[in-house]
Amino acid sequence: MRVAFIGLGVMGYPMAGHLAAQGHDVTVYNRNSEKAAQWVAAHGGRAAPTPEAAARGCTVVMACVGRDSDVEAVTLGPGGAFAGMTKGAVFVDHTTASAGLARRLATDAAAAGFGFVDAPVSGGEQGAKNGQLTIMCGGTEANYAKAEPIMAAYARQCRLLGPPGSGQLAKMVNQICIAGAVQGLSEALSFARAAGLDAAAVIEVISKGAAQSWQMENRHRTMLANHYDHGFAVEWMRKDLGICLAEARENGASLPLTALVDQFYAEVEAMGGARWDTSSLFARMEKLRSGQ
Amino acid sequence: MRVAFIGLGVMGYPMAGHLAAQGHDVTVYNRNSEKAAQWVAAHGGRAAPTPEAAARGCTVVMACVGRDSDVEAVTLGPGGAFAGMTKGAVFVDHTTASAGLARRLATDAAAAGFGFVDAPVSGGEQGAKNGQLTIMCGGTEANYAKAEPIMAAYARQCRLLGPPGSGQLAKMVNQICIAGAVQGLSEALSFARAAGLDAAAVIEVISKGAAQSWQMENRHRTMLANHYDHGFAVEWMRKDLGICLAEARENGASLPLTALVDQFYAEVEAMGGARWDTSSLFARMEKLRSGQ
Repeated sequence: MRVAFIGLGVMGYPMAGHLAAQGHDVTVYNRNSEKAAQWVAAHGGRAAPTPEAAARGCTVVMACVGRDSDVEAVTLGPGGAFAGMTKGAVFVDHTTASAGLARRLATDAAAAGFGFVDAPVSGGEQGAKNGQLTIMCGGTEANYAKAEPIMAAYARQCRLLGPPGSGQLAKMVNQICIAGAVQGLSEALSFARAAGLDAAAVIEVISKGAAQSWQMENRHRTMLANHYDHGFAVEWMRKDLGICLAEARENGASLPLTALVDQFYAEVEAMGGARWDTSSLFARMEKLRSGQ
Repeated sequence: MRVAFIGLGVMGYPMAGHLAAQGHDVTVYNRNSEKAAQWVAAHGGRAAPTPEAAARGCTVVMACVGRDSDVEAVTLGPGGAFAGMTKGAVFVDHTTASAGLARRLATDAAAAGFGFVDAPVSGGEQGAKNGQLTIMCGGTEANYAKAEPIMAAYARQCRLLGPPGSGQLAKMVNQICIAGAVQGLSEALSFARAAGLDAAAVIEVISKGAAQSWQMENRHRTMLANHYDHGFAVEWMRKDLGICLAEARENGASLPLTALVDQFYAEVEAMGGARWDTSSLFARMEKLRSGQ
């Protein structure tokens, strides 16, 4: 099938690779064209000079870029993909962006005779490389049905969760849970150290019970070793928590812990940790405790 | 072996039963003597009129009561177990209590020629019934070595984590992690509802990734159904978080999320939820959201 992929970052590069490996005829677009040329050299297909040119003649067009403004640029901006979309085709946005933008783009797309599915992913760089991402989708059944077989190239799990925007909202639910688990774990480890315990030994004992979490299992050792280079960066988490809090302001949800953790991440950024991974909330706790 | 068990509550009753089932000669004491008589009718052994009488002649004496004040009453109070302890015996406290009390009792015990191990458990009523508790211990190696083979009757996992008080401190680490995970999950579910999502469907999709936790897996359904009768009660969690916060005041740890969640549990108590289980943080979120 003829498809396009816009945005060859840490996530998009391997995702587009899986599409090629599945035998799709892939056109890629990347802001930095050298990266696109490199992708084509490795995977075949072709690079287009604009998102519009990439989208032209494709049945499904994927994007995975940074923020709302980047999504707007590659869809509606000059040379944006929406101008090149074929009637009946579907645009799939894998960016984690606001639900409001997803709803707006879905409306624009429908008016122009093509489909839109918001489809943020979780699973990180590793999941993208292994083709084992979890994909949370919002859109109509008909548009989802067209996109799903293509996304299967890099999905472990893919699900339609409701109308446009629902994928983004589900991703926020995910980030809120992570915020609580990571800060709880950070306080617990910091408390353990302050109390003179062997924190790793304690975690080993409690990690099969009601305190267990993915974050505990996969991050407590690296946190105790002050290694914060495990993927998803604080600046991206802040973007996501900002979306959560803005959305909650609209829908009336109260997010006290999420708001607090967002402020803690602001402090991590002030410590120079914008590129550290999300488990660096522990670095903040330890900095406070050590007074350094 | 001749042992005693003090406190036949939801936890102690089945724990003492496992000791009898292992062939130990068990003397029990309970504040309400009818419960003790019922235990003896079911398991054999004998009931003593005071903790002191129960402890007399025993190699290991266990207790599992409510709070610091209860532990003080059954150890040091009139008719308390410490007066009946044999030299070389070990007193094991399964109560979740303060680390400071554990240190004091360990010092008293050592001065009187017997041992003390603080050994709070996790695994709840179900773990006590199945003999599958996790036991976090503080004490000397020698005292732990005497107690461990007896505790094996109801332990899935048992570990010495350091000097007296370390078991209690480890249990606090456990509770801090739970506080973060439950509040994060509560906010996430409440946000999902406010956003019009099918919260259970979203959790199903995200529950294998970085947002996963024991609380998510085991409580999201019951929370969404407003069922808060799954064991460990809010009033006991407040007791534990109070211990955490008091301990942190001593050791210089900062526990912002834990302090916040403790206040939320105070609000759940004000809603009449002192006996609801810890997942009832969600009930608080939903009450706020619905304005009822």
